[in-house]
Amino acid sequence: MLIRLGYDIRFDIAAPLAYVAQLKIHPSRVAELREPDVLKIESSEFGFHPAEDGSNIVPSHDYIDGYGNICTRFTAPRGHLKLSNSTLIEDSGEVDPTAWDAKEIPASELPDDVLRFLLNSRYCETDLLAPAAYDLFGNVPPGWGRVQAVCDWVNSKVTFNYGMTRPSKTALDVFTERVGVCRDFQHLAVAFCRCLNIPARYAAGYLGDIRVPLRLPMDFSAWFEVYLDHKWWAFDARNNTPRIGRILMATGRDAADVAFLTSFGTSTMTNFFVVSDEVIE
Amino acid sequence: MLIRLGYDIRFDIAAPLAYVAQLKIHPSRVAELREPDVLKIESSEFGFHPAEDGSNIVPSHDYIDGYGNICTRFTAPRGHLKLSNSTLIEDSGEVDPTAWDAKEIPASELPDDVLRFLLNSRYCETDLLAPAAYDLFGNVPPGWGRVQAVCDWVNSKVTFNYGMTRPSKTALDVFTERVGVCRDFQHLAVAFCRCLNIPARYAAGYLGDIRVPLRLPMDFSAWFEVYLDHKWWAFDARNNTPRIGRILMATGRDAADVAFLTSFGTSTMTNFFVVSDEVIE
Amino acid sequence: MLIRLGYDIRFDIAAPLAYVAQLKIHPSRVAELREPDVLKIESSEFGFHPAEDGSNIVPSHDYIDGYGNICTRFTAPRGHLKLSNSTLIEDSGEVDPTAWDAKEIPASELPDDVLRFLLNSRYCETDLLAPAAYDLFGNVPPGWGRVQAVCDWVNSKVTFNYGMTRPSKTALDVFTERVGVCRDFQHLAVAFCRCLNIPARYAAGYLGDIRVPLRLPMDFSAWFEVYLDHKWWAFDARNNTPRIGRILMATGRDAADVAFLTSFGTSTMTNFFVVSDEVIE
Amino acid sequence: MLIRLGYDIRFDIAAPLAYVAQLKIHPSRVAELREPDVLKIESSEFGFHPAEDGSNIVPSHDYIDGYGNICTRFTAPRGHLKLSNSTLIEDSGEVDPTAWDAKEIPASELPDDVLRFLLNSRYCETDLLAPAAYDLFGNVPPGWGRVQAVCDWVNSKVTFNYGMTRPSKTALDVFTERVGVCRDFQHLAVAFCRCLNIPARYAAGYLGDIRVPLRLPMDFSAWFEVYLDHKWWAFDARNNTPRIGRILMATGRDAADVAFLTSFGTSTMTNFFVVSDEVIE
Repeated sequence: MLIRLGYDIRFDIAAPLAYVAQLKIHPSRVAELREPDVLKIESSEFGFHPAEDGSNIVPSHDYIDGYGNICTRFTAPRGHLKLSNSTLIEDSGEVDPTAWDAKEIPASELPDDVLRFLLNSRYCETDLLAPAAYDLFGNVPPGWGRVQAVCDWVNSKVTFNYGMTRPSKTALDVFTERVGVCRDFQHLAVAFCRCLNIPARYAAGYLGDIRVPLRLPMDFSAWFEVYLDHKWWAFDARNNTPRIGRILMATGRDAADVAFLTSFGTSTMTNFFVVSDEVIE
Repeated sequence: MLIRLGYDIRFDIAAPLAYVAQLKIHPSRVAELREPDVLKIESSEFGFHPAEDGSNIVPSHDYIDGYGNICTRFTAPRGHLKLSNSTLIEDSGEVDPTAWDAKEIPASELPDDVLRFLLNSRYCETDLLAPAAYDLFGNVPPGWGRVQAVCDWVNSKVTFNYGMTRPSKTALDVFTERVGVCRDFQHLAVAFCRCLNIPARYAAGYLGDIRVPLRLPMDFSAWFEVYLDHKWWAFDARNNTPRIGRILMATGRDAADVAFLTSFGTSTMTNFFVVSDEVIE
Repeated sequence: MLIRLGYDIRFDIAAPLAYVAQLKIHPSRVAELREPDVLKIESSEFGFHPAEDGSNIVPSHDYIDGYGNICTRFTAPRGHLKLSNSTLIEDSGEVDPTAWDAKEIPASELPDDVLRFLLNSRYCETDLLAPAAYDLFGNVPPGWGRVQAVCDWVNSKVTFNYGMTRPSKTALDVFTERVGVCRDFQHLAVAFCRCLNIPARYAAGYLGDIRVPLRLPMDFSAWFEVYLDHKWWAFDARNNTPRIGRILMATGRDAADVAFLTSFGTSTMTNFFVVSDEVIE
Repeated sequence: MLIRLGYDIRFDIAAPLAYVAQLKIHPSRVAELREPDVLKIESSEFGFHPAEDGSNIVPSHDYIDGYGNICTRFTAPRGHLKLSNSTLIEDSGEVDPTAWDAKEIPASELPDDVLRFLLNSRYCETDLLAPAAYDLFGNVPPGWGRVQAVCDWVNSKVTFNYGMTRPSKTALDVFTERVGVCRDFQHLAVAFCRCLNIPARYAAGYLGDIRVPLRLPMDFSAWFEVYLDHKWWAFDARNNTPRIGRILMATGRDAADVAFLTSFGTSTMTNFFVVSDEVIE
């Protein structure tokens, strides 16, 4: 299955502003790209016309962060900023795998670099949620079914509402307020899994909905990954059903590590448009 | 100056328990060690007698985490656990350097791996503290003096009290409660620095007090480091005066990344003794 | 000046539901009413046609709560509920009085029933905000000017945004997030005043804007009152300018005591319309 | 059964300080007093010798607050302050009554002045805890048994630890931290009851332990009261067993309304001694 991916995001910027973007496809999916994954960074200072050689007009450089994500750094000049991309990926077209017999790995046997996904983080306060996690899931048999029980609980108890989130909303806030957006659902599920000593990490990327016409404008999506049977598996406490077309961009402990765009100062978003559509050849 | 370093920490353990220790000297200080830095891990199951060849009796392995710290993993059997060490380091004997003309580096010029020390973290909620940080320090001239202003403020406003902390205490809690232990002082100072776009990281290690007899039992200590003039510098919002004998063990975004000991289950501490004494030859 | 006051608020109710309304004019303003202040409570079960004798169709009774507010209790049957009113008040037409020489009253000289307005409350956490209040206003000379300094600070630091509030938002949340609706502005100002030992209480009622066409739909409004010179004075950290046409409905420690409508179960609001217009004869 | 009640509480005071004390027996128990209930307020300025006529040396006056408690106001001069009392009460000697068939009263049938004990308050955040309360107790049959289920849950999940509380600790904090003192246990239980639409109020007073030698120094105690079958009943999530010798001093929505001593400024406690002993004639 071919999927057209892309975005057009614009800002007004009052003074030169440093940015870090996580807007490229995750290295684990790069081999499936059928067109180059080029983040175009244009500024009104230089004109919004595409550069002939396809290179970005605002200079940038990429690096890999501590979680293995591609990060793009640049300094936007004063004026209008446009970040855009259009690329094509060949996806298996298969739904998220399920493996009901996948087992939890004891902490003592986890790989060294997986341990950090058991720890406390900004939006997943395992110290504060551990008692509730044990109350709710302590007696659920370990393994895939316990992670699924976490997803079922979060999905049934939390109501989706675009207007009822905020940048500082944490897993505990979601637990008490029971309302939020996809990021909030995943934070609570991630926190619960970690409390149960199941490594869990936050994930972000494209998630098209090929089968159902969307009423909401397209956005990037968040889900989470869990380490069972010595592999990472995608779970999604918001949709809570296997999906197709999940294209990973970044993973990390939580949304503090994973942000499409981080700026070290203020700007005003003027446009936000994301594409993730199946291409029928 | 030679400093004797060591500890004797004991636990009662009811069921086999996975641990990660950050109890070794930081790689940046290893060249100054005059004796091997051996973490002895003994279990009553095997007897507490020292192994003849100096090796640990409970098997363990070391790895370097994402922040460059040495981490030691092991699984403690049921019974009594003893973690001990005695090593010797040659320290310059100089006090923490000060550099009043050290400059802040704009976010756009920071090294890639320093950027993460501007972000939000579990115990340093930059999103919630940024307005207060701007109110307090927004008009202080940038550079070393601004970091010192942060330390002076935290040091004068927060009261030290051993009994008034808790594992979940965050920088915002310290800001509202104005009381805590050394970890709490540093968390608030770290958060304020990051809000001002000054990279800051939490640091832990030995800090002997050679000049003043201590009334409190010796403990490990926390301080923080700030990135100015393309170097990391030690600051200490708790003591707020240049000190000698600061021996680094680990750094990270906050105490969620830096813990002398993390266990993935419960145990009971029965002994805690730390040594950091000048050795007069 | 004559002001037409009223509202039309509707709910869908799935099961009989107990309500307490604070939708009548405060006893202190009753003498100025030129038409009866009748809260009509109609249910689709009985039909929405007005009762001939002007009485409410859903039975209700009034009582005075511990803060001196008129509260109306009733049990709404299953179906559609309509709460409406239209009354007329003769207001002085004068702007909120100012008294720059009004003095703070020492706690020891406050009337007994004013003391409670110095205490901690659900949305005004004086224990958590006292240090910040002293930092900001501890050196401002006491009296009217200090309350005005609180209002100026809150008004300049907090941004009004209809979408950025939530029922559980407290003064500390407003202090950290710096965004909210009128209720949020007043909660922070009330908390700061109490921290400074100035009695302050939350107030709600009608506040027409006679001079400026409103772009937002009309709503009830919140302000606060401060006890200086042995009198209560209206302050408004949201508008922060003397206003005309403030018609009090209820006061209390904070929004936990003052709510236009409290229901002990769930319902769905289907209409919300408030009138507060000058009547030109 | 006769019980000797009393206290000796002392402070050092740097500047004249206004106080409100709730240190007298609740009006509902006054008829059982066998000696006058005199709060002696002595200051070193006047000497600590007892006044010949038994009157207080520091002038004070009593009033009844909005919850029906006796409050004593006074202004302590600079110097040492001593608050003391010794009185005798004749108690029934019966344990707290239990009534397993006591029924919950629907909100629509509660007396007007009971409704406030369903609302949100500073230390009992019903808005944040309602979802958890429904998860835990939503399916428990209503009535006495449901309140007992709340007490059983709190008692079994929260650990008593004198050192692990703080003045700002709320019911939500107790829910997440699962540790605290008696006040903390009651706050969580009160919050849960209110979330279930069961009126609940915080209570404080003397609670001697006649049968068991106490290892901890005697203190005042907190419990809570619940409104069932049109009466208030004592419950105690900390001890969670019917007790004798509970002598009420004050009730309110939570510890923000009920404090043995509130001062509007700072002082240092130098002595705290409480007596509640059975007197064998």
